Amino acid sequence: MSSAASTPAGLRRRIDQVRERARKGGLSAVMITPGPDLGYLTGLSTHSHERLTALVIPSDAVLPVAFVSPALEFADIGRDRFDALGIEVRIWRDEDDPFRLALRDLPPGPIAVSDLTPALHTFALRDAGAGDLVLAGPAVADLRMRKDSAELAELGAAGAAIDRVHARVADWLRPGRTEREVAADIAAAIVEEGHATAEFVIVGSGPNGANPHHSASDRVLARGDLVVVDIGGPMPSGYCSDSTRTYALGTPAPAVGQAYAVLQQAQQAAVEAVRPGISAESVDRVARDIITAAGFGENFIHRTGHGIGLEVHEHPYIVERNQTVLEPGMTFSIEPGIYVADTWGARIEDIVAVTASGVEALNKRPHELLVL
Amino acid sequence: MSSAASTPAGLRRRIDQVRERARKGGLSAVMITPGPDLGYLTGLSTHSHERLTALVIPSDAVLPVAFVSPALEFADIGRDRFDALGIEVRIWRDEDDPFRLALRDLPPGPIAVSDLTPALHTFALRDAGAGDLVLAGPAVADLRMRKDSAELAELGAAGAAIDRVHARVADWLRPGRTEREVAADIAAAIVEEGHATAEFVIVGSGPNGANPHHSASDRVLARGDLVVVDIGGPMPSGYCSDSTRTYALGTPAPAVGQAYAVLQQAQQAAVEAVRPGISAESVDRVARDIITAAGFGENFIHRTGHGIGLEVHEHPYIVERNQTVLEPGMTFSIEPGIYVADTWGARIEDIVAVTASGVEALNKRPHELLVL
Repeated sequence: MSSAASTPAGLRRRIDQVRERARKGGLSAVMITPGPDLGYLTGLSTHSHERLTALVIPSDAVLPVAFVSPALEFADIGRDRFDALGIEVRIWRDEDDPFRLALRDLPPGPIAVSDLTPALHTFALRDAGAGDLVLAGPAVADLRMRKDSAELAELGAAGAAIDRVHARVADWLRPGRTEREVAADIAAAIVEEGHATAEFVIVGSGPNGANPHHSASDRVLARGDLVVVDIGGPMPSGYCSDSTRTYALGTPAPAVGQAYAVLQQAQQAAVEAVRPGISAESVDRVARDIITAAGFGENFIHRTGHGIGLEVHEHPYIVERNQTVLEPGMTFSIEPGIYVADTWGARIEDIVAVTASGVEALNKRPHELLVL
Repeated sequence: MSSAASTPAGLRRRIDQVRERARKGGLSAVMITPGPDLGYLTGLSTHSHERLTALVIPSDAVLPVAFVSPALEFADIGRDRFDALGIEVRIWRDEDDPFRLALRDLPPGPIAVSDLTPALHTFALRDAGAGDLVLAGPAVADLRMRKDSAELAELGAAGAAIDRVHARVADWLRPGRTEREVAADIAAAIVEEGHATAEFVIVGSGPNGANPHHSASDRVLARGDLVVVDIGGPMPSGYCSDSTRTYALGTPAPAVGQAYAVLQQAQQAAVEAVRPGISAESVDRVARDIITAAGFGENFIHRTGHGIGLEVHEHPYIVERNQTVLEPGMTFSIEPGIYVADTWGARIEDIVAVTASGVEALNKRPHELLVL
């Protein structure tokens, strides 16, 4: 991961913001293990191993921020990055206790750890004498939700890249091919168009389109199918794309066309509702009210959207009861769907960014049902 | 994942063995979240999401084994598998509390959770009133260490597949190509020869060979290089391969050749030492003593090996202080190395299986330095 947003000064500012939140929250320290939070704060994309790797951010600014790393893995990381960030490096060997090393000099008090820190490590921290353990995720998510201009540029590039893939999907969707064959073509194009990996490729044809979590099967595409194509993944920067369009193999039945028109109207209205100062749940409600009024409320079986950045799914979630107030720099999907179990489904998904006074869509492909 | 070992009766036997260990260990229950342990016990290869998925195995046989699953994800899993295993399914929706559902009817007492269960879930279990939380890994690892005949057959097939890749490596290793170019050819061959994915491809040429955790860089191969090629990944069965050979671009300097001969002797002796009844650490010692006696003790900077099965790294580890007594059906790598920092490195790695009275190597390529 080497995001354009990741200058040493920018990363250090993020770390200091976490420290400040830890202090206000009455924490002793925040401990970040490998994953997207560590990438966000240090630019490092190390994977999690059985051995403890952790960035320890004490709330007391007198104490150094420390990076705890197994000797064997530190060889690939290098010390320069930490010198530039003013972080103390603590290397450990297999005969050392990394948990005591992580807790060294910390005053008593609760410690926040990454949401994905495995039990293997949280239980060892507890047994090494750590105080109450709580989740670090909310504090870091609160920062990660608000993208800076460099991050927005990366997400814009990701959106353009996945739009170029959707522009080519019509070449591959043909009756007689399997969903899996189409998905393989799309996966190759996702990488060709600039992504690091094709993290997910949903090709949901006919009845499979009614399952929002379908991936791709050996079902053979048939004339008359609607096909939900929901695709994306990380760019080399680490920032992700995610966009859905629904295609039709031949003109659909009038009732399906009418339902799709409702979906398109709901998606458009929800995008247009986005602006600073309104709540995440109110955006969900805009889409849901339109779909419900048309009689399809029971067919819209998921939330309207999810935040996106270094992860495909992150805060803020566009869902009932999420009263998070939208601010400029927040980025998330708007993706209502209508699903008729075992029959057909349709979904339209764009990533949008909250701007100073409104909204910008980062996906720009047409929303109409593309009849092939 | 659809291992040949995973008949319903075979899976249910594994679950009952975990239950029996939980009872003997004084646990209330064992709770397994997505990962290799869940695959081993149910055949399921679901990924971990923010929503709780867990197999709950109470120690009291009067209580049902339960599978807790979010409604949205259960659609892709299907109930038949659980009916066949005699497992109660507990579906939850976003308005439900999955942690109370998981703990339902459990008597007081410690609960063991998967080693990789994220803090997000372990802290919520704690807050939902779970007793002491401990790691489930050791109990399940104890079962997973002892492979049955179907598992051994899968590991044998994985070994043969990676051997076929090593048989082709000489075609791609040429001065003037980069490590990364060679690694791309090898990755494609790993899949061509039957693996599900090319999980790791180490091409460590010249000085990069001295770093056991190197992957592949833009370094251009040069005449005179030793090249460490350490490759493998999961087969469609879920069982993994892992094998290392060292290649030479031209005849190496006599001192390097002599060091390699020591390495080869050490690797061979360690393989031949494997038999039921001896300890894991004694196998490490056989390799280490030979390398140390030849004056390269400081250059052998890692353990001799690691277990392998549904994970590339699992128990038993072949390392000092591991007094695990080897038993028939245990499978692990024997992979000593000699590393001269910033100069060159060499490693030889075979997967071996403990048999009724001795050892069987699952990798069968020649051990000599292959001079190209």
